[in-house]
Amino acid sequence: MFNKSYSSASMAKNQQNTLEKIVSLAKRRGFIFQSSEIYSGLNGCWDYGPLGVELLRNLKDAWWKSMTYREDIEGLDASILMHPRVWEASGHVENFTDPMVDCKQCKSRYRMDALYESYNEKRRKKIADAYAELLAERNGDADTFRALPREEQMERAGEALADENGVFEAMNEKELLVCASCGGTGTFTVPRKFNLMFKTFVGPVEDSSAVVFLRPETAQGIFVNFANVAQSTRQKIPFGIAQIGKAFRNEINTKNFLFRTREFEQMEMQFFVRPGTDDEWFETWRDMRRQWYMDLGMNPGKLRLHVHPEEKLAHYAKAAVDVEYLFPFGWGEIEGIHNRTDYDLGRHQEYSGKSMEYFDQENDARYIPYVVETSAGASRSLMAFLVDAFEEEELEKETRTVLHFHPRLAPYKAAILPLVNRDGMDDIGQRLSRDLQKSFKVFYDDSGSVGRRYRRQDEAGTPFCITVDSQTLEDQTVTVRDRDSMAQERVAMDALKAYLLDKLSD
Amino acid sequence: MFNKSYSSASMAKNQQNTLEKIVSLAKRRGFIFQSSEIYSGLNGCWDYGPLGVELLRNLKDAWWKSMTYREDIEGLDASILMHPRVWEASGHVENFTDPMVDCKQCKSRYRMDALYESYNEKRRKKIADAYAELLAERNGDADTFRALPREEQMERAGEALADENGVFEAMNEKELLVCASCGGTGTFTVPRKFNLMFKTFVGPVEDSSAVVFLRPETAQGIFVNFANVAQSTRQKIPFGIAQIGKAFRNEINTKNFLFRTREFEQMEMQFFVRPGTDDEWFETWRDMRRQWYMDLGMNPGKLRLHVHPEEKLAHYAKAAVDVEYLFPFGWGEIEGIHNRTDYDLGRHQEYSGKSMEYFDQENDARYIPYVVETSAGASRSLMAFLVDAFEEEELEKETRTVLHFHPRLAPYKAAILPLVNRDGMDDIGQRLSRDLQKSFKVFYDDSGSVGRRYRRQDEAGTPFCITVDSQTLEDQTVTVRDRDSMAQERVAMDALKAYLLDKLSD
Repeated sequence: MFNKSYSSASMAKNQQNTLEKIVSLAKRRGFIFQSSEIYSGLNGCWDYGPLGVELLRNLKDAWWKSMTYREDIEGLDASILMHPRVWEASGHVENFTDPMVDCKQCKSRYRMDALYESYNEKRRKKIADAYAELLAERNGDADTFRALPREEQMERAGEALADENGVFEAMNEKELLVCASCGGTGTFTVPRKFNLMFKTFVGPVEDSSAVVFLRPETAQGIFVNFANVAQSTRQKIPFGIAQIGKAFRNEINTKNFLFRTREFEQMEMQFFVRPGTDDEWFETWRDMRRQWYMDLGMNPGKLRLHVHPEEKLAHYAKAAVDVEYLFPFGWGEIEGIHNRTDYDLGRHQEYSGKSMEYFDQENDARYIPYVVETSAGASRSLMAFLVDAFEEEELEKETRTVLHFHPRLAPYKAAILPLVNRDGMDDIGQRLSRDLQKSFKVFYDDSGSVGRRYRRQDEAGTPFCITVDSQTLEDQTVTVRDRDSMAQERVAMDALKAYLLDKLSD
Repeated sequence: MFNKSYSSASMAKNQQNTLEKIVSLAKRRGFIFQSSEIYSGLNGCWDYGPLGVELLRNLKDAWWKSMTYREDIEGLDASILMHPRVWEASGHVENFTDPMVDCKQCKSRYRMDALYESYNEKRRKKIADAYAELLAERNGDADTFRALPREEQMERAGEALADENGVFEAMNEKELLVCASCGGTGTFTVPRKFNLMFKTFVGPVEDSSAVVFLRPETAQGIFVNFANVAQSTRQKIPFGIAQIGKAFRNEINTKNFLFRTREFEQMEMQFFVRPGTDDEWFETWRDMRRQWYMDLGMNPGKLRLHVHPEEKLAHYAKAAVDVEYLFPFGWGEIEGIHNRTDYDLGRHQEYSGKSMEYFDQENDARYIPYVVETSAGASRSLMAFLVDAFEEEELEKETRTVLHFHPRLAPYKAAILPLVNRDGMDDIGQRLSRDLQKSFKVFYDDSGSVGRRYRRQDEAGTPFCITVDSQTLEDQTVTVRDRDSMAQERVAMDALKAYLLDKLSD
């Protein structure tokens, strides 16, 4: 179904075309609309249309059942607004920032790395050379730097520009930094930290004591409820808490459709374990989570695990691995598995003064549990499943667009298509539709040629089309057409529901 | 199950006790926790624990299926952050306000009606008398006012105080308004409008051009997507769009547990109809929505319809009726059914410049559709179902606390309880548990006496308890105990799943 070797610029262009086609299909068929589109949209926000909301529901439901329909994981649904101390304890108030610069001349504001990325090769080379000089002046390791390939030099220089104020000031004084808006050089303020949490005010007074944040991740809702959940459920370690919910990040650069948005949905599970057993649990969950995507039909050739090197780990993490999917724009993270140690519970114990210790009867030990977290993006993985399902299949006389969703994810499980609107075929179709609807979501369509109706269902990803025709009137059978193989089969109407339920449970 | 006649203060006190008991049970058993509890909580926000999140999921799922598993209603999931023009068009920027006053002396801020409500009878009487004088001075209808019973006079005076700046200023000058904080009189600023929408800033600059709001209702997400949904689904009027999602209101006075909160979840459906057919559809939906609560087991004696009198209708409404539930604190709205006419689509057409007209082929007419809306609170109706299910049943020797949830709503559908942890009973129990878990959520419990385990499940609202005992080892049957009747029945293990599925589908 997918071409597994890629190369060169034509690939990049084809892939970009693919993304555009998917975005267009998603809008036309009612998967994804731009938020507030009639008002020119709100950047970084998207709405799920009739097909999209079913796909999202099915995806979340599959995750929820795989996570919480087991003895050792409990569910939770914490509020989006939380006490502001939560985000001091978690480190978000201090660390969840991007460096921003202002142009003093025209007041334009940029995220530092975005400003640098907007420069052409020539300017970047100049900056890299100036950075090499700076390193030499400072007795930094200029020789090692100069020995790097040019590309890597430029990358390092860009990172230094965003992270080190001294480097930034030097480049700014040398007039190497240009404002994209007014063209001014040497006009920038030194970078300052911009926090990516959306803030709002609770109560009628808009001052600092009333500030609360829209949660930037669902995880903290689980940590602060650890003791409540443990007590009310009498769970013993190891056990997990799972949650699905919205989170918000005031991203400066939103991009790639549902991939980087300001409002998104997470599916997170925090698994609390005894220190010393965390490495093993980390491996267990890493493998189980990768498998989950494959069990829902995702192409294994487009999935990979990306291990974070030790020097790039977040301050709270002992180990981290991303599940990545090969999107048209390249590999992108759809889920992260992290060993967060006892960092979060320890911080909340410190900031709240409430003990987060757990008494482990079996081992007669008292400790703050370690946490292995599986953090999936519902929005991102929906996009990955959408991209993965998309195919333009060349048939003899035409190209058909089809979404090969796993039956569990497909918005409609079946479509009922009476061949013509007479001789009672439509009545039979309606009856079938109502009967099947009791068990799963179906679509009834009696307009246009059957070929056209098949194509519409292919585009919606409906796994089965059921045709009521003149033979139905004679022998009480219908045609069941398979979306992927397009093979057709006659099935007795009274055996249809069982037939479909069996196929859908694969 | 419920006492249907109420009277006097002892009722009020008992009822308040009942609410306290439910709140306590909800916390102890993991239905509802206070948000950010370890940081003393965040007022007006609540978290759903392991049992609560299942109850909420089941409730939303029942609503979603009853609403969207039909041909004429489509689903949607719009973003919480929307373009700010949406709220200008909807009228929220202008009208979704409470009057607030500041004490100039100590800077305390009050919602006007809350300030008045905090006064004792004596002060209120003084204000009512002063208001009568004012009416007389102004040639207002002072005689009619003076003829009213004292209570009603005071109520009217309170309303005038909150709504009319002139009245407020007069009372303030007469030093009848006292600051609850510093005791100052005559110290208040004139009331100003305080908008109940939470606001935040998109992008790095916190100025007015970056302001967006957290949606105070989900309805507008549906209106702005009307054309997108109609086009992508080819639906014909009449048809509806349904949505479940969070909404936020910066309430000054949160109260009554889940009833008035700052963050809550709505289940809304907007049904688009041809003008002239709106009255009929309003009645249809009013009746269907009331019935829905009864179908899920809610006591009809505690449900009523409250019709809004014409003079109290919101600016957008032609008719409105609330479905009310008799909470321990009195009757409270759990859903509103509104005839919103073409107000919303008309306003969005005006503000966006995009046509919201629909061409009705069948009637060869072009019009802006009318909207009949059913707006249910997921959080509120969850609270109603929780209150409605709660019973302290007097048995011969003890009181048992039981939640009589409808099986569709119950967090766990069944509990598996091996009588003792040996002779292979626990193994059989575990096998049963895993097997049933494939079809629905179950709970496995092997600790404590069976009587105690039954009580735990009664408190969780689990409809069926399955006991594995020594007879099971002999004849492969288990005991199934019904939560409500406490009757027990022997069922063959290989027929158990079918038995339960049958009972659960009632």
